[in-house]
Formats: sequence, structure tokens, C-alpha cells
Amino acid sequence: MSRIENLALLIDLYELTMAASYFEHQMFEPATFSLFIRNYPPSRRYFISAGLADVLSYLEDLKFTPEDLKYLEETRLFKSEFLSYLEKFSFKGDVYTIPEGRLFFVNEPLLEITGSLIEAQIVETFIINTMNLQVMIATKASRCIHAAWPRKLVDFSLRRTHGADAGLKVARASFIGGFMGTSNVLAGKIYGIPISGTMAHSFITSFENEIDAFRAFAHTFPENTVLLVDTYDTLSGTRIAAEVGKEMAREGKKLKGVRLDSGDMARLSREVKDVLRKAGLGKATIFASGGFDEYKIKRVLDQGGDIDSFGVGTKMGVSADAPYFDMAYKMVQYAGRPVLKLSPGKTTLASGKQVFRFTTSRGKLKRDVIGLRDDNLKGGEPLLEKVMSQGKITARLPSLPQIQKRFLAEFSKLDEKYKSFDEQGREYPVGLSVRLKSLQAQFVRKLKSGKSEELGES
Amino acid sequence: MSRIENLALLIDLYELTMAASYFEHQMFEPATFSLFIRNYPPSRRYFISAGLADVLSYLEDLKFTPEDLKYLEETRLFKSEFLSYLEKFSFKGDVYTIPEGRLFFVNEPLLEITGSLIEAQIVETFIINTMNLQVMIATKASRCIHAAWPRKLVDFSLRRTHGADAGLKVARASFIGGFMGTSNVLAGKIYGIPISGTMAHSFITSFENEIDAFRAFAHTFPENTVLLVDTYDTLSGTRIAAEVGKEMAREGKKLKGVRLDSGDMARLSREVKDVLRKAGLGKATIFASGGFDEYKIKRVLDQGGDIDSFGVGTKMGVSADAPYFDMAYKMVQYAGRPVLKLSPGKTTLASGKQVFRFTTSRGKLKRDVIGLRDDNLKGGEPLLEKVMSQGKITARLPSLPQIQKRFLAEFSKLDEKYKSFDEQGREYPVGLSVRLKSLQAQFVRKLKSGKSEELGES
Repeated sequence: MSRIENLALLIDLYELTMAASYFEHQMFEPATFSLFIRNYPPSRRYFISAGLADVLSYLEDLKFTPEDLKYLEETRLFKSEFLSYLEKFSFKGDVYTIPEGRLFFVNEPLLEITGSLIEAQIVETFIINTMNLQVMIATKASRCIHAAWPRKLVDFSLRRTHGADAGLKVARASFIGGFMGTSNVLAGKIYGIPISGTMAHSFITSFENEIDAFRAFAHTFPENTVLLVDTYDTLSGTRIAAEVGKEMAREGKKLKGVRLDSGDMARLSREVKDVLRKAGLGKATIFASGGFDEYKIKRVLDQGGDIDSFGVGTKMGVSADAPYFDMAYKMVQYAGRPVLKLSPGKTTLASGKQVFRFTTSRGKLKRDVIGLRDDNLKGGEPLLEKVMSQGKITARLPSLPQIQKRFLAEFSKLDEKYKSFDEQGREYPVGLSVRLKSLQAQFVRKLKSGKSEELGES
Repeated sequence: MSRIENLALLIDLYELTMAASYFEHQMFEPATFSLFIRNYPPSRRYFISAGLADVLSYLEDLKFTPEDLKYLEETRLFKSEFLSYLEKFSFKGDVYTIPEGRLFFVNEPLLEITGSLIEAQIVETFIINTMNLQVMIATKASRCIHAAWPRKLVDFSLRRTHGADAGLKVARASFIGGFMGTSNVLAGKIYGIPISGTMAHSFITSFENEIDAFRAFAHTFPENTVLLVDTYDTLSGTRIAAEVGKEMAREGKKLKGVRLDSGDMARLSREVKDVLRKAGLGKATIFASGGFDEYKIKRVLDQGGDIDSFGVGTKMGVSADAPYFDMAYKMVQYAGRPVLKLSPGKTTLASGKQVFRFTTSRGKLKRDVIGLRDDNLKGGEPLLEKVMSQGKITARLPSLPQIQKRFLAEFSKLDEKYKSFDEQGREYPVGLSVRLKSLQAQFVRKLKSGKSEELGES
């Protein structure tokens, strides 16, 4: 089976070639790196912090096994002194982060790491890989929640997530974004997320008649009978399901609901509800699946769809309309000297930072200010918390339900205009503190005038 | 670290609830399921088989551990008889497949499994999860190869693939699609793919001057010096790199190349080449990265970009313009009786099948015919091979370089019109055999007339 035993080598080669050169030049002074998103993806105006728990456990456990070192030696790229260094390597840095479940915005540091240059550098690939996916999925999931509210959503994406790890992380991140459960059994086992699922079309077709399939399932799962009614024709399937529902009622059992998986959902759901009501099964719920995302949920509900809950699969699980975010992990300080890059469209904010959140008197989110880490902005709530010190987790990490709760509470305080699915939506106001602005301006000026040798002063 | 120890529970819950009901009703007769893609994603007209090796190793190892069973028991969904059945479960079915690296087209069965109903059903989630990703990425990678040919491409996508498993599978699948290497060190270790990488912008900014960074790297890696020149300004960076290249030449070493990562690549690459030539470094190569996919590669080359090789990252690694394929795994036969579903837009082809490929006298691909498994179509090459018998791998699986070679050879025989990036591209001709067409017609007619009880005859 495709197991991933050790993730130390899940790394871009250049992290290790840079590290080898740093090692050779004895560059071990402290560096600070900052993780942030450079631009809003199409029609998005906020992000949700997610993925931190996995990053912290990676950092705490990070080591190169003898097998890893053997492989690196075989590449003939590295000198033995450097490989001996890697043999003893562990991560001893500090981590600051915006906790999982909180909202954040473009250019805000989601996570900052301070450690000796090599350790802060080589964790880059894993950190982006992990945080980019979970932030992206939690954000996408929250849009589905917003469209469906207060209806319940279940993650059905496992078969089309990008691999096994994504299947797990999508279940986790969509739960953070407000989903109530997942079809992914392993995610249930690992994360304690409620699991959900009943039958596929193949279950129906494996019986000679639809009614035989429905009866068989009702017999095996009398407490959890949700019948899939669209295998041959949704309405005739529903009539047969109602038949079985009435049989169940005679035995003191209850048909929990039916699932629609194709066709014109708005119209069909109303007609299905009608059939169920006329059969005295008005309390049976309608569960809809099949290509749903925030856009289709909104459309079907706008058209009067009578649906109680949705299975949301592929398009959420791959964040289909924005399958990657422009997340970057950049060095902002080295050996006490702020640093940045000026590549077109990719300018970074120098130095270790803090984000301050200001709210209105009624508790609504008003604006954020990105400042230097030791800025003190009156009335602003500092968002980044220190969660790891010298390689050890120091914060008590919240449970997944606590993270979801924190997200839903803060999301309710974000103005509707930032939740729009519109391409032209307004941006939430994010400013720079006076001190950060001044440092940045001074620094860009100096870099552009080519006096890069003077850049350690401020 | 987020390790995935056992994948048996990486499954949609409904696979297990269906299985429990099959078990209760003693439905153990043989079933055949078929894996295929229902529609062409935007601007694609062919697919590449990829992912089979992972599926076979999953099937061979599949078992439920005591820990898995304990979790399933705790859900209180399942009876103890069924859990005892799972305890002894292993996959004993047969697998037919179109080998990795071969081209295939819409509706063609990429893989067919025959086994007892439960075993053929519960492997669905993993099979789609694995094959969908690798087919999608191999196909996307081949488009980049087509645009860049004969230039070399390297997979740079690890940081933005959807998780750890995707990082590995993308490296593997893009290699099948023609890439020459990857930045992903673990993929190098596991799959033997050549690894590639030198430095990031942070390497440059960690030194006070660009030239110090370049000299340091050239000192550590004199055989592998590719200098990243766009941190502050591409042309001035190139002049400094040329300086270092001349210093290296004086010591009998060679500057291997420079990397551009931002800006107007077509113009900059020509100007960079000019600077290098004038410094007597005309043999140094230009490596370009930054947002490349098939479209950007084509555009930059059409505009006269002078680039030797490309690092292709995010957009390939998530198949950004088509981040999922409409891949399905459907039951086509049960207990000797062909089955299908009629849900709108989702009709399936009944029965176990074979695909026959016809070529022209010059060896070009001409057309495919989907037939019944025991069809014998003269002059057509049968594509599906039996690779697993009663749960054991029976075929000798090719190495990754052999798979790549097979792909590139067949790809060269596919007409250019099917490789277009155009939305309106022509479809490769795929027909149905006389016997399959007749079975299908008869069957749909009977189902629609509601006489589903007569459906076991043909």
C-alpha cells in the first residue's frame, strides 16, 4: 500500500542544496520566514486559517532517517560533513501563527518561523504544501456553508481529491469551514469527524428490482435508511421508496430520507417532497448530491429547491474554481537584518510581524493592520500567537469542533459584502502600521538605489 | 508526522453499508465493475493511463486491521457477523487494465474488476481516487511536453500539490507524461526519478550582496551551478552571474546556467542570452520557471523566448484548468446478468468489455472500438490486459522509464488534431462493436419498458 513513512524528504531539492551551502559557509544565524497569500483568488475576499496542527506535528517530529541519508548520499550532490549535520538535525525554532479557524486576509502573515537559517528554510515545502491545501479547502467549504445556511453539508469528495492525504485533509478542513460530516471513514477514525453514507447506484442495480434493493437496505439499516431514488427515474424511484417507507412505518420503523443525485434538482426536490407527503412521509428528508458547490447550491435554492441537506463532493474537494492559492513562504529577516525581494509582483513585507484586528462597538470586523511584531496598536487584537518554542509545542491546541465553532462565530461577524461570490467584491481593509510602512519604504528605496550593503541598519 | 499507515478505511462509508447489506443478504456472486471517464474535460481529447501500479499494490495488501475494526464497531452501524467477515477479508478478484502509459479515450474501460460483489464494490473509492489523479496529471504533463518539445521539463509543483500523497503521485504521473525530473526528493527516493533544484530567492537575500550568494553557491556546487537571477532585477542579476561564471571559468569550472522566475520571459530570456554570450558563456543554459503550463510555454516560445528548459509547477501539479476528471467506477455485470444505470447523462455500457485499437498502414492511430470482452475484432489490438488473478499480480509490471517510453512512442502516433489546446478540438473516433451495441440497445429498451425482471437473459 502506498504508505508515507517519513516526510523529511518530502521537500524540494533546492531546500537541501541551499542548506548545504549555508552549512559550508557556516551561516547559522537566526532567520525569520513569513507565510502569507499574495493575492485573492477569483471571487474570494477572505481566508480561513487551517492546517496548523499538521505543521506543528511535522516540525516536532522532523528527522532524517538512516535510509533518507543513504539516498541523499547516493545522489552524490552532498558532502559527508553536511550529511552528518542532517543526521543530527531537529527543528528547534519558534512558531507564531494565526490560530486555526480564524479569518485572515491578503498579505497577512498566517505563520512566522524564527530559527537558525537552515531549519527555518528547509521546512518551507512541507509548510506551504500543508497550509495551502487546508486554507483553500476550509475557505471553499465556508462558501458552500454560506450558500446553504442553515442546511447541513457533508463532504463527499474523497474519490476525486488529489490522493489519499488530500482526502483526509479535505475532510478536516471542510469540517473547520462548517461541514457537519464526511463520507471518508478514515477521516472519521483519525479526526473524530461524524461519518455519513448509505448506498450507490450499484447497490440498486445489483438487485433485479429497485424495491428489492430498498427493502434489503431498510432491513439491514432500519435506523439509517436513506434511499437513492434516481437510478432509473427519480419520481418512480421515489414512489417505490415511499412504498418501502410505508412498510417500515407498519413495523414501527421510519424512512429517514431519500437521496437525489441527478436531474433538475429544484423541480425534482419539490415533486419528490410532494410524493413523500402524500404517502404520509412528510418528515422524511431530502438529501441532494451531484456536482454541488456554492454556486449550484445557491442556484437550486434560489429556484425554490426543497432540500434538507447536501452532499458536496468533487468541486469542493479540489476547490475547482481556484485549485491553488498564491501562498508564499519568504525570508523577512536574517541575522538581525530585515530582508525582502523586489521581483515584479512579488514584493514582500520585511521583518517579523503581527496582525492587529479592530472591531466595531457591536463586535463586527472593521479592519486589520499589519505591524511589526513588537508594535503595540491600541484597541487592536493581536492575532498571531506563539505556539512553538525551541521546537516544542507550547500552546494547548483546540479540538476540531472548537476550531469550527471559532470559525463560525468570527464568520458571523464578517460583513456580507466580503462573502459575495462576485468577481468584483470589495476587499476587507488591511493597512500597514506606521513603523512597518516606514521600515518598508526606507528599505525598498535603499535596495533600488543599489546600496544593498547598507541594509542592516534599521 | 501525518503518516498514513493503512488505507483500508480510506473509503466512502457507503461502500461499507452496501457491503453490510450484501453480506446480510448473502449476495456473494461475481460482479464486474468498469472504470472509465464519462466526458472530455475542457480542451482535452485524449487521456493517458497512469496509477495502475498503486492500485495493484493496494489490492494485494488490502486488509482491515484490528484497530480499523474497533473503530467500525464503535460507530455502532455494523453487526458483529459483518465485522468478523471484514476481519478475514482480502481481495481475491481479477483485474484487467489498459497498461500505464497508453492512450485511451472517453467511455473506454481503463480498468475492469471481476470479483465477488463485496470485494469488487468496496475498492471503488481508492481506485477512483488513485487513477483519477494520475491520469489527470499525466495528461496535463503531456500537454506541457507537447508545447515545449523538444525542450526539457521538470516538475516543480510539490509545494502546491494537494497534500503529501499528491506530491508523490504528481511527480510519478508527470514523469509518465514525459517530464525528465522533479524537485521532489522523496519521489526521487521512492520512484528513482531524477531530482533537480538549486536555490530560492531566500538564498540570495540571506547574503548581503547578490554576488556573495552566487559565489557561495558556485563554491558548494561547482558541477551544478544554476544561478537565480531575478531577485532584484533580472538583467543586473545576469551580469553579476556572468561575472561569477567568468571567475568559475578561470578555475576550470563551468557555470551551468541561470534561472529566470518572473517578468516578461520572452524578452528577458533573449536579453539574458545576449549578456551570457557577450561574457563568453554562450553554453550556459536558460532555465525558466514561474507560472508555466502548456499555455504559457506555448506563448513564450511563440514570442521567441530563448529558453532551454522549464520548471513547471503549480498549474501542472493541480491540473489547474481541469482539476478533476469525470471518472466513474460502475457495476456492469452481476451474477451473470449485465447491468447498467439510466440516470440522465450518466448511462453506462453494460457487461465486461475490451477495447480494440486500429492503426493505419503507417502505424498512426486510426480508431478504437469498444466491444464485449470476448469479441474478436480482426485487425484490432486488444488494449486491456489481465494483470491480476484471484488477488495476485500476474503481469510483470514495467518500470517507470519503460512506461514513459511507451507513452512517448504512442503519443507520436496520435494525430496532431487531437493534441490541440482548442476548446472545439475534434474527438478521436471511438465506436461500439456490433455485439455490444445490440446488447446495449436491447437492454435499455427493456429497462425503459419497465420489464426489469427479464434482464438476465442476454
